Amino acid sequence: MTGGPSGWGCPPAERLARLALSLFEEPGDPQLCAFTHEFGTARLLDALARGEQLADDRRWPKRWSRASAPAAADQAMATAEKLLATVGGTLRWSCPGDAEWPPGLDDLDHVQPLSGRGAAPLGLWLRGPHHLTRVAARSVAIVGSRASTSYGNQVAGDLAAEAADRGIAVVSGAAYGVDSAAHRGALAVNGRTVAVLACGADVAYPRAHESMLARIGAEGLIVSELAPAATPTRLRFLARNRLIAALATGTVVVEAAWRSGALNTLNWAGSLGRVTMGVPGPVTSSTSNGVHRLIRDGAAQLVTTGAEIAESIAALGTDTCPWVHGNQRLLDDLDVAARAVMEALPARRSCGVDLIAEASRMDADDVAAILGRLLLAGLVERTGDGWRLSNDASVALQDS
Amino acid sequence: MTGGPSGWGCPPAERLARLALSLFEEPGDPQLCAFTHEFGTARLLDALARGEQLADDRRWPKRWSRASAPAAADQAMATAEKLLATVGGTLRWSCPGDAEWPPGLDDLDHVQPLSGRGAAPLGLWLRGPHHLTRVAARSVAIVGSRASTSYGNQVAGDLAAEAADRGIAVVSGAAYGVDSAAHRGALAVNGRTVAVLACGADVAYPRAHESMLARIGAEGLIVSELAPAATPTRLRFLARNRLIAALATGTVVVEAAWRSGALNTLNWAGSLGRVTMGVPGPVTSSTSNGVHRLIRDGAAQLVTTGAEIAESIAALGTDTCPWVHGNQRLLDDLDVAARAVMEALPARRSCGVDLIAEASRMDADDVAAILGRLLLAGLVERTGDGWRLSNDASVALQDS
Repeated sequence: MTGGPSGWGCPPAERLARLALSLFEEPGDPQLCAFTHEFGTARLLDALARGEQLADDRRWPKRWSRASAPAAADQAMATAEKLLATVGGTLRWSCPGDAEWPPGLDDLDHVQPLSGRGAAPLGLWLRGPHHLTRVAARSVAIVGSRASTSYGNQVAGDLAAEAADRGIAVVSGAAYGVDSAAHRGALAVNGRTVAVLACGADVAYPRAHESMLARIGAEGLIVSELAPAATPTRLRFLARNRLIAALATGTVVVEAAWRSGALNTLNWAGSLGRVTMGVPGPVTSSTSNGVHRLIRDGAAQLVTTGAEIAESIAALGTDTCPWVHGNQRLLDDLDVAARAVMEALPARRSCGVDLIAEASRMDADDVAAILGRLLLAGLVERTGDGWRLSNDASVALQDS
Repeated sequence: MTGGPSGWGCPPAERLARLALSLFEEPGDPQLCAFTHEFGTARLLDALARGEQLADDRRWPKRWSRASAPAAADQAMATAEKLLATVGGTLRWSCPGDAEWPPGLDDLDHVQPLSGRGAAPLGLWLRGPHHLTRVAARSVAIVGSRASTSYGNQVAGDLAAEAADRGIAVVSGAAYGVDSAAHRGALAVNGRTVAVLACGADVAYPRAHESMLARIGAEGLIVSELAPAATPTRLRFLARNRLIAALATGTVVVEAAWRSGALNTLNWAGSLGRVTMGVPGPVTSSTSNGVHRLIRDGAAQLVTTGAEIAESIAALGTDTCPWVHGNQRLLDDLDVAARAVMEALPARRSCGVDLIAEASRMDADDVAAILGRLLLAGLVERTGDGWRLSNDASVALQDS
């Protein structure tokens, strides 16, 4: 595949060179990215293959100067050509300039690397029917502990389903625990979900999620900056986290102990100016410690429902949550005098105006006028010998 | 009792007049407070007893103009004299000017009334050995749902015990649920606790807490603006909430559904510029809804431990919580290259420098230099044929 369908704006040579460079170094290498930006992919590849520096004042890392580097560059180019030939079906290699290159990815070039990984990816392998730019436009990353509790799994699944039901794509990492609960929650409501992997887009990792990943590949989208067949490593997980954060409008951490990869993803989201959110849990559960700390420190906004996620990631003033009202709303608009009359009415009996006036320390004529207003509001009812609270008002008062 | 021990700076006549006025109206009546401020207690009482207005442009509420108001004022004065005669043991009537009048109470005169109740109390009945001003100086109100869950009770008790252990007095309302769990948590560690009641300081309400209130009266402090023997009403609970908020340095809500009296207390704390805090819980529990909403909206800071409460209510820069570290701290200071070397070491076997260099894509001499640093840091160990991760480092990497 060299030209590709319409929407593939990145020229074939550049597409190939980017793939070769992505094979030459581990993902998220900020130095490779800097050289790519400065000298262009073709010149960089050529210099690497010759074992020559590009400029005296911009000498590259020692590891690229090793005797084996030119051979590695040649090898990368050859492998890239072979890999591009495998593109087909829904598997594609997307690069900057393509319609399916979400603009948000480039934000990665403008923030400090975290844990030594950073920069926009050279390209992304995509597998599945979704259009990455379109799904990323309104999306939420739901991430958390691999060793999540049943509470965490339940909440992750519920939030994912609620978000997906609102047309928000659910992005996660397909890992054990919270990640897979989130994907499954979205899949269960036929929502859109994106799995960003630290291995090849065709690799089922973890193995136990093979059928889930197959379904995401068939109905959703799998994303990776690693070549097909690549295996995951810890560094690749760290690099992957930045993609999850960059692709999603906002990131929610469901459960995470104080040191967790999910917090790395949230840090990325924060650096990138994305919406950062956390779901609380019991303070007695160590798996919620990290999330609680983030919320306490103002690094994440507390969310408890899909509606709140929608509100948090929405443009200001859209998707706002309805205010939660109990029966108490009935009492909210009352002034002090009306409230005093309500309080003076006995719980289950009716009562004459004079007694109400006495109990509320008010004048009988004032009380009578207020009772008229309360009657219209459905808060009191007339009885043969006086007044009593309506059922709704009784319930509301009991709650208060 | 007219003079009283040293520290009773409020003159006897004023003390008596304030008590009489407190009997004339329901607690927290902003109008009575405004008239007291403007005209003084003696003139106000005199005018009420005569049934005469104090000024043409400041006419009082109709309910004070009733035919019965003069009689009520006389009655209040007579009752006040009788009540002051009952003062003794640890029961006392404290007024502005007294050493035991916490300055924070006067803040109530400078904020908008909530739910029609407001203003500093005319005086406070105190019962128990604690000195109110001293205990209030560093204190936390722990309040929440009466219908709390076992989780809420456990957390309220734990937080109260942890706070009390740090010398922070625990203020609450002696109600069912969170309130009593908080008092009991403080009592269990022989900490200081203050119960602020919506009834007389000698009244056991709720009845089931009679022995707990007896112990607080014997070892802690009971506070009320209502005369001995007074019974609680809903308006009195609302008025009481402002005292809890004003007396404590900060208020924590443990469990509260969206409409709860505890949120009223927190609103007061916020209005008064006190520290407002909330304890999260499972999002699946409706008793935590209200707290979550407050935290989400930035109206309360999330707290999970007594140490965090201490940090939140402390002056800036004091009582700061130690940063929570897991084994991961071992890895925090590593640069990218050192981290790459660590990642390249196999989990349970030892490995030679060349293999590490290959796996980490680094030069062997760089790897050897880094291994030397990691050895000093206790992260790697020498073996006969190479290097391996130390136990601590293995654990730290597994957590990441």
